[in-house]
Amino acid sequence: MPVELKGNILVTGANRGLGLELVKQLAETTGQEAHIYACSREPEGSRTEALRQLTTRHPGKITIIKLDVADEESISAAVQAVQDQIGDAGLNILINNAGIRKPALSGALSATKKNDMMEVYETNVVGPFTIAKVGLFSAEPRFPDASIHFSAIINISTAISSIEKCPETFSAAQMYPYRISKAALNMLTRCQAEDFKTHNIVVTAIHPGWVQTEMGGENAPLTTVDSVLGMLSVISSLSNKDRGMLLDWQGNTIPW
Amino acid sequence: MPVELKGNILVTGANRGLGLELVKQLAETTGQEAHIYACSREPEGSRTEALRQLTTRHPGKITIIKLDVADEESISAAVQAVQDQIGDAGLNILINNAGIRKPALSGALSATKKNDMMEVYETNVVGPFTIAKVGLFSAEPRFPDASIHFSAIINISTAISSIEKCPETFSAAQMYPYRISKAALNMLTRCQAEDFKTHNIVVTAIHPGWVQTEMGGENAPLTTVDSVLGMLSVISSLSNKDRGMLLDWQGNTIPW
Ligand SMILES: NC(=O)c1ccc[n+]([C@@H]2O[C@H](COP(=O)([O-])OP(=O)(O)OC[C@H]3O[C@@H](n4cnc5c(N)ncnc54)[C@H](OP(=O)(O)O)[C@@H]3O)[C@@H](O)[C@H]2O)c1
Ligand SMILES: NC(=O)c1ccc[n+]([C@@H]2O[C@H](COP(=O)([O-])OP(=O)(O)OC[C@H]3O[C@@H](n4cnc5c(N)ncnc54)[C@H](OP(=O)(O)O)[C@@H]3O)[C@@H](O)[C@H]2O)c1
Repeated sequence: MPVELKGNILVTGANRGLGLELVKQLAETTGQEAHIYACSREPEGSRTEALRQLTTRHPGKITIIKLDVADEESISAAVQAVQDQIGDAGLNILINNAGIRKPALSGALSATKKNDMMEVYETNVVGPFTIAKVGLFSAEPRFPDASIHFSAIINISTAISSIEKCPETFSAAQMYPYRISKAALNMLTRCQAEDFKTHNIVVTAIHPGWVQTEMGGENAPLTTVDSVLGMLSVISSLSNKDRGMLLDWQGNTIPW
Repeated sequence: MPVELKGNILVTGANRGLGLELVKQLAETTGQEAHIYACSREPEGSRTEALRQLTTRHPGKITIIKLDVADEESISAAVQAVQDQIGDAGLNILINNAGIRKPALSGALSATKKNDMMEVYETNVVGPFTIAKVGLFSAEPRFPDASIHFSAIINISTAISSIEKCPETFSAAQMYPYRISKAALNMLTRCQAEDFKTHNIVVTAIHPGWVQTEMGGENAPLTTVDSVLGMLSVISSLSNKDRGMLLDWQGNTIPW
């Protein structure tokens, strides 16, 4: 049975692509008990224009937070800014959506630089690691009643993070730094799923599908609307059996 | 049927622990057609004393190469030094053994710094990535006869890299940066296994067991002698079905 998503919800990389659509649908579908912290590394910049407009359309519902997940100080400042607002209440849902893919084209071995490997890991893995570490979560779940009995960390991964399926996917999408980082993110997800059991926080990785965004490109079959509809339905239905799993936007399990 | 290991064999992190024992047993068991490039980041330092002695005991069999796998320039220089000796022959077996585990103790989330995450990834994943990229391998396999019909890259991984098994292993060995890096190394292994098929290079990850070394500690059940005996037997028996797999020192498959 899907639960109503409520409480304090934070989305990283919320100024465009899947992050923006996540904030949009969350703003439209959640009730008064939900507040959304929409993060962008340039809140004032032109790339955050659409998010600022969305915020204006939903007065009091969305707070834009400055956050560069590759920058530890930025993470600390963002955590402080959120905590100043929510106090002891803690965060209920953290969606680690910000991500990069480098180099721009295929990511073949010969075209990939050491720095691509390091930067992609820093953003896609060490970002979510550090955000969790800095510890936005209150020790007690915010909603101990039956309708929401969990808090959740959602790490946005990808189907091509599957080591098992690599022989099937490799030739079409080599992307060394990216797929290696997302396999690492899956391990982070599963470690945190164990680690945070005592805090009753569900940690799950989700593959959004291949989606029409700057990253996904225009040949992608899915719109952000359909991907996010699917992901939010999956998130609302999460239960103990989904702790530390990799699910796609339709709820199917992807093997490691 | 095990094959005789021969040709040019390179071992990283060869000055102590498993790397040193790999070089020792390779020097003792291979014939005249084998030459070993034993890498150390401080060939002249006191930490390489045992390797220098071993080299003296096997005249003409072992060449010590200066190599810090976390340093791109050092990798280029090492590749150049090896190529100056082997010319077009190429490398036959590359054993990516050098590795670090940080922080020193448990590697719990709260005790782990961002820099630990970055440094462990740089050494354990980007090191092997860069060495392969710089391309020690000749396009043609060196020994096209039936006894050795492959060249091989062996990435030394660990059982706790298994994302699947994480719920069983996590509480005894949290080690966030280390196990995340080794899951990433497994993905690198599987990508390269696909990528290098055209060059007929087998790429396989091996878990050495829990071994008495500086990293493994004194409570470990296995000696370096037994671990390396096992690993070399596994390496000599590698065949096409082992491409892109994670095997333990006894040849058992570990799930991703
Ligand atoms: N699209 C797909 O087909 C697809 C498939 C599988 C998985 N995914 C995953 O889905 C997530 C969202 O992807 P998308 O398709 O929406 O990508 P996108 O259109 O490229 O958007 C990426 C978002 O991440 C933000 N970002 C990047 N680096 C950041 C940093 N250091 N700090 C803060 N924000 C940062 C970007 O902000 P700026 O505007 O500041 O750059 C942007 O908001 C990613 O994790 C991606 O790996 C996407
Ligand atoms: N021991 C175990 O129980 C165990 C279990 C599973 C997997 N493993 C894996 O087995 C491999 C060998 O481990 P070990 O137990 O022999 O560890 P160890 O005793 O700590 O030795 C590590 C070796 O790696 C070298 N190294 C570290 N960073 C390096 C760098 N940047 N460049 C070049 N060399 C570097 C060290 O050289 P310096 O002397 O210069 O530091 C040393 O030779 C590692 O990949 C480890 O993850 C070990």
